[in-house]
Amino acid sequence: MKKIVNDPATIVADALRGMAAAHPDLLRITEDPAVVARLDAPVAGKVAVVSGGGSGHEPLHGGFVGRGMLDAACPGAVFTSPTPDQVQAAVAQVSGGAGVLLVVKNYTGDVLNFETAAELAAADGIDVRTVVIDDDVAVQDSTWTAGRRGVGGTVLLEKIVGAAAEAGADLDTCERLARTVVANVRSMGMALTAPTVPHVGTPSFELADDEMEVGIGIHGEPGRRRVALENADGIVAGLLDPILADLPFGSGDRVLLFTNSMGGTPLLELYLAHGLAEAALASRGIEVTRRLVGPYITSLEMQGISLTLLRLDDELTALWDAPVHTAALRWGV
Amino acid sequence: MKKIVNDPATIVADALRGMAAAHPDLLRITEDPAVVARLDAPVAGKVAVVSGGGSGHEPLHGGFVGRGMLDAACPGAVFTSPTPDQVQAAVAQVSGGAGVLLVVKNYTGDVLNFETAAELAAADGIDVRTVVIDDDVAVQDSTWTAGRRGVGGTVLLEKIVGAAAEAGADLDTCERLARTVVANVRSMGMALTAPTVPHVGTPSFELADDEMEVGIGIHGEPGRRRVALENADGIVAGLLDPILADLPFGSGDRVLLFTNSMGGTPLLELYLAHGLAEAALASRGIEVTRRLVGPYITSLEMQGISLTLLRLDDELTALWDAPVHTAALRWGV
Repeated sequence: MKKIVNDPATIVADALRGMAAAHPDLLRITEDPAVVARLDAPVAGKVAVVSGGGSGHEPLHGGFVGRGMLDAACPGAVFTSPTPDQVQAAVAQVSGGAGVLLVVKNYTGDVLNFETAAELAAADGIDVRTVVIDDDVAVQDSTWTAGRRGVGGTVLLEKIVGAAAEAGADLDTCERLARTVVANVRSMGMALTAPTVPHVGTPSFELADDEMEVGIGIHGEPGRRRVALENADGIVAGLLDPILADLPFGSGDRVLLFTNSMGGTPLLELYLAHGLAEAALASRGIEVTRRLVGPYITSLEMQGISLTLLRLDDELTALWDAPVHTAALRWGV
Repeated sequence: MKKIVNDPATIVADALRGMAAAHPDLLRITEDPAVVARLDAPVAGKVAVVSGGGSGHEPLHGGFVGRGMLDAACPGAVFTSPTPDQVQAAVAQVSGGAGVLLVVKNYTGDVLNFETAAELAAADGIDVRTVVIDDDVAVQDSTWTAGRRGVGGTVLLEKIVGAAAEAGADLDTCERLARTVVANVRSMGMALTAPTVPHVGTPSFELADDEMEVGIGIHGEPGRRRVALENADGIVAGLLDPILADLPFGSGDRVLLFTNSMGGTPLLELYLAHGLAEAALASRGIEVTRRLVGPYITSLEMQGISLTLLRLDDELTALWDAPVHTAALRWGV
């Protein structure tokens, strides 16, 4: 295994120490349990937005903690759900008295542990709501999921709901916005190579030199089909067609197009794919009015991309454009 | 070769089309010759800062075009210098009448072609100055370089000089600041894996599963030594010690620490390395007052990191902190 690591057993804690060192003006990071919180939390009278999940998808979620996005993130071990007490600790740390919204990607472990945490927090007298995101159109059930998996749409949801909370929206409004995003966002991904989980030490799956996996999950879970490697046109169409068919998106829609690197795909290829996706959408009369291009929800060093499409209205657009200051997304401030 | 590409011969042009689509509010991109310019260029009365080099190091340089950084970037073919007429076209496009500063990484082809372009632009009556950056302490001469290579320090130089130009500094001042950065910045990198150049189709070099290359260049050029894979402590010390010895940096210095991913290294490992570097500097009494952590000067999908240290004073710090709005770096706006 080729990784920059001292001990696979402490890789998350060691990385969090580096993250704290890198962002002293932004983050307050505790180690046991591991919680990444915004420096000025709790913000009195503000709805707190909390998310989390297994590590290895960075910058998700810790990179999205800060003004205008998440109040806290709970990083589990690599590809492993955070524990209920960890989520409970995060909620307690950042609750500002206006309620807490938990953003949960649809994986069985995450859903269970966040549910338990929500019950514990409710017992502490905190008004907690949970929104589960399941935007991956690739498969119905998967290795770690009943129902669809939560993937790239999570980034957009956290930005939009975070902006609303920052602007003073109440918990009902934040929950409604989160459900609006869930209803209007769809994603699909593919991989050229497999990631290697540090404490496992070998690649999560084998792909031949002339193969790719279409519909892959962010933990390297199997997708829709393993097929012969296609060119960029084929790859982009293979992701975009199922997304467009699913909602369905149609001519006249305004959308945010999020072209995501799974970690190991260089920006040169990512921009290339983004350009093809924009052209394909234009040819169908779908207007891309906002974009995000980069590695924002990854699977360690896996090479591959995902595309996410969010149908926008004026409200969602304004919340997307609102100032944000996190380690991974920053504008307007 | 596993890449998201249609035709290796057109990969740069195809990627630039995607970049233009992704940043319509920021960039104006022409294809022949390939120039990435800020949308509002030329800015009358402002010194224009222009850089460029081979593609495959994204976001360098196109991702640094915008307010407060570069006025234009000239992307060559992958790992290939831009042509003199390409640089001349960029200079003509963005020259605002206050002179143009060319930022050139020290590679033989780049130095020659930018020199020729400077002569052509001078013949057009434009006051052009050239600053060559050579911050890599790993080796004296290398595959494509006489003298030291220009690497991570380039990103910091472009930010600092770009901020000065944006604030109205004249060409003499911009040139002086660039030379100050060159004098005070040092870098070194290492690789776990090799990149694959698209039009070549095979990895640039072979590394055994238990080997790493220390002192590598951003084109996969050989470094100081090929050694057995070390743990993160060993890797960080192996980069930091030669950097600290070279300038030399010492107790009481204030520095910017830039922990860079060579492309394929995940953020989890990058933050881990950053934390170790911060701790090592603290133990020597060197105060890290500014940080940059991420993939900013890459070698396609190569796994590895580089560390860059810039000695700061109040002037450089204020210019680093000044607002910037580019595809890859953005704050304050």
